Amino acid sequence: MTYITVALNGLIAVGAYFMALRIIPRFKDMFIKANLFGKDLCKRDKKEIPESLGVLVGCVFLVAMFLFIPVPFTLEEAAAMDVETGGKPATFPHEEFVELIVALLSICCMILLGFADDVLDLRWRHKLLLPTIATLPLLMVYYVNYNSTTIIMPKFVRGLFGYSLDIGVLYYIYMGMLAVFCTNAINILAGINGLEVGQSLIVAASILIFNAIELCLGHQVDGHKFSVYLMLPFLAVSLALWKYNKYPSQVFVGDTFCYFAGMTFAVVGILGHFSKTLILFFLPQIINFLYSIPQLFKFVPCPRHRLPKYDPQTDLLHISTTEFRKDELNILGKLMVTVLKTFKLITWQEMPDGRVITNNFTLINFVLVVFGPVHERVVTQMLMGVQVLCSIVAFVIRYPLASYVYDT
Amino acid sequence: MTYITVALNGLIAVGAYFMALRIIPRFKDMFIKANLFGKDLCKRDKKEIPESLGVLVGCVFLVAMFLFIPVPFTLEEAAAMDVETGGKPATFPHEEFVELIVALLSICCMILLGFADDVLDLRWRHKLLLPTIATLPLLMVYYVNYNSTTIIMPKFVRGLFGYSLDIGVLYYIYMGMLAVFCTNAINILAGINGLEVGQSLIVAASILIFNAIELCLGHQVDGHKFSVYLMLPFLAVSLALWKYNKYPSQVFVGDTFCYFAGMTFAVVGILGHFSKTLILFFLPQIINFLYSIPQLFKFVPCPRHRLPKYDPQTDLLHISTTEFRKDELNILGKLMVTVLKTFKLITWQEMPDGRVITNNFTLINFVLVVFGPVHERVVTQMLMGVQVLCSIVAFVIRYPLASYVYDT
Repeated sequence: MTYITVALNGLIAVGAYFMALRIIPRFKDMFIKANLFGKDLCKRDKKEIPESLGVLVGCVFLVAMFLFIPVPFTLEEAAAMDVETGGKPATFPHEEFVELIVALLSICCMILLGFADDVLDLRWRHKLLLPTIATLPLLMVYYVNYNSTTIIMPKFVRGLFGYSLDIGVLYYIYMGMLAVFCTNAINILAGINGLEVGQSLIVAASILIFNAIELCLGHQVDGHKFSVYLMLPFLAVSLALWKYNKYPSQVFVGDTFCYFAGMTFAVVGILGHFSKTLILFFLPQIINFLYSIPQLFKFVPCPRHRLPKYDPQTDLLHISTTEFRKDELNILGKLMVTVLKTFKLITWQEMPDGRVITNNFTLINFVLVVFGPVHERVVTQMLMGVQVLCSIVAFVIRYPLASYVYDT
Repeated sequence: MTYITVALNGLIAVGAYFMALRIIPRFKDMFIKANLFGKDLCKRDKKEIPESLGVLVGCVFLVAMFLFIPVPFTLEEAAAMDVETGGKPATFPHEEFVELIVALLSICCMILLGFADDVLDLRWRHKLLLPTIATLPLLMVYYVNYNSTTIIMPKFVRGLFGYSLDIGVLYYIYMGMLAVFCTNAINILAGINGLEVGQSLIVAASILIFNAIELCLGHQVDGHKFSVYLMLPFLAVSLALWKYNKYPSQVFVGDTFCYFAGMTFAVVGILGHFSKTLILFFLPQIINFLYSIPQLFKFVPCPRHRLPKYDPQTDLLHISTTEFRKDELNILGKLMVTVLKTFKLITWQEMPDGRVITNNFTLINFVLVVFGPVHERVVTQMLMGVQVLCSIVAFVIRYPLASYVYDT
């Protein structure tokens, strides 16, 4: 039955792809009229590009999933039908059913809040609050359905904690933070044409490959099936969006898409029971976050925008820089830049008057530090290449290496 | 256990009320900055009033409901706990659980689509499509959980159809149309300060009274409990919104609120199994719709806006009118105005040159036809009075009269 269900899911995904492909161009003017647009700063003609199109593909995704709801349950019911009574079989998968619905509730809520953020331009602290709100139903259902908060310990600490440990409420905090992490991780590594959607496509593809491997191995079949059901339509609508968002962008995706994508990943990670593996697929985002820390937490002065600088003459992107006096930095700031300088991870130019010029600490700028001025399209491709490489590393960590740490 | 659950629900509702009361004024400027505002045409100073605040109370409602999710199930589980195994009792109410989640999914989806409509200003045909999309998950879960499409026949047609009739797919169409009806019914009877929220408050209160009566009688306890769980928080956030939306409005509620309210009513009607009674509570909206038909379907010329006309000198509202030549009307149009004229339901002024001036056919204008120019605050009060009267009529139909038509 699983094959038929996945095939039908794939069919719905294909439908969603063409639907999204068709409606995105038709809605473009409506977004501009509604004052939802941005200027593309890395182009010669700084055209007005419709913004927040993520809400559109999010809605197409939801409709596709709504239509899919009855499929797995009707098929499984048919397979397990009690022939004599003709009634609902005792094995009707209630818990899976409610999981699918609550996953959609969390995602729908996140799209709503993301769109509200795009329209109303909420403050920074809201960006942490909104994903927490949207995960609430998930946590509540987890509480009612399982309330299992026990984690298996890695081998090398079992002497200290035993084989497993019940971490209680910490487990819920962990799940909530996972959603905050996933949504914001994609939102932070953004700003050049196609990057948000590009990285989401690769994460989604990595998850699907992982699901396929685990399904073949027969591990945790329910969780991975569940993940496939959500990931195929997500991949489909993201591909459609990619067609319009890749260089040169005809549409921007908005925070809505970053939230939508991040929440979808968090939901399959949590309810598919592979949240640790999921985090491995976010390696570039984690590296970007770590690299950004000196500026994010103000140890090094941070300008309002850290996007690369566009040179209209050559049509290439250059690093964007920040300027400060060396003695402005406190002791921690000094330590951080020294480490980064030592490993040649930043540019560093000292002026005679004591001022220092260095690049802004983002992964996009780092690519430009290494490769010099590059065309925007190529920067996106390089960053997507990094994402693919990191996914390969993730699989190496997950399969050969994990057996040293956990029993598999 | 029911009493404790309802009490906790009420407590959460009170919290939601104060939360909404607190955040509405804080977000006002953000809405105006986002270009979401309208001018109040029935005031001397046509100030800019923030629009679509419905999305805010919708979100507060959702958060309140998310926090409520575990309450009924934890309590019922505790009551039915299998002491020996300590495990989940065999009687765990899976179907009720999934109903609550899917109800929230439909409502959340409707708030999202409503807000998108407010921001993007979608076309008229979308107004019929959007509620249909948002009801999809509800219908899908209904299909998986029950798929009971049999209706009980009224006594007087049982000779023809038998005691009950399985209407199959028509039942799903009926449920989908109920959602379209509820959402648009509130949206059509609107336009003066406080009217959308005012009517919603009275419908919600009527539903709660009906639920209380049925719970006391012990009829369909599960359905009515379910309805109470959603209606109390809805009433709470609507009351908070009413404080700012009543005359003179400091905020407008937008299509978002109309959709949100209509969907919440449709959901409790469908999943609470009292959709026919629910329709009775919409009598003024039905009357408004019937009265509007000649203009809605263009039998009589319909201007773009049919709001009453404001007289800045007296601060009173007058009927707004439409003008046409009598010979423009086709045969059906002529018949309709003749009937309306005969029963004195419209004003009718024939000019010497063959033109005719008559009021626009809305319930708001009808109140002004009967009572003459009235202050805006009073018009809203009158229409709310009509709503209360109609609810009383609904109870009379539902209780003493229904026993003639159905067995009770």
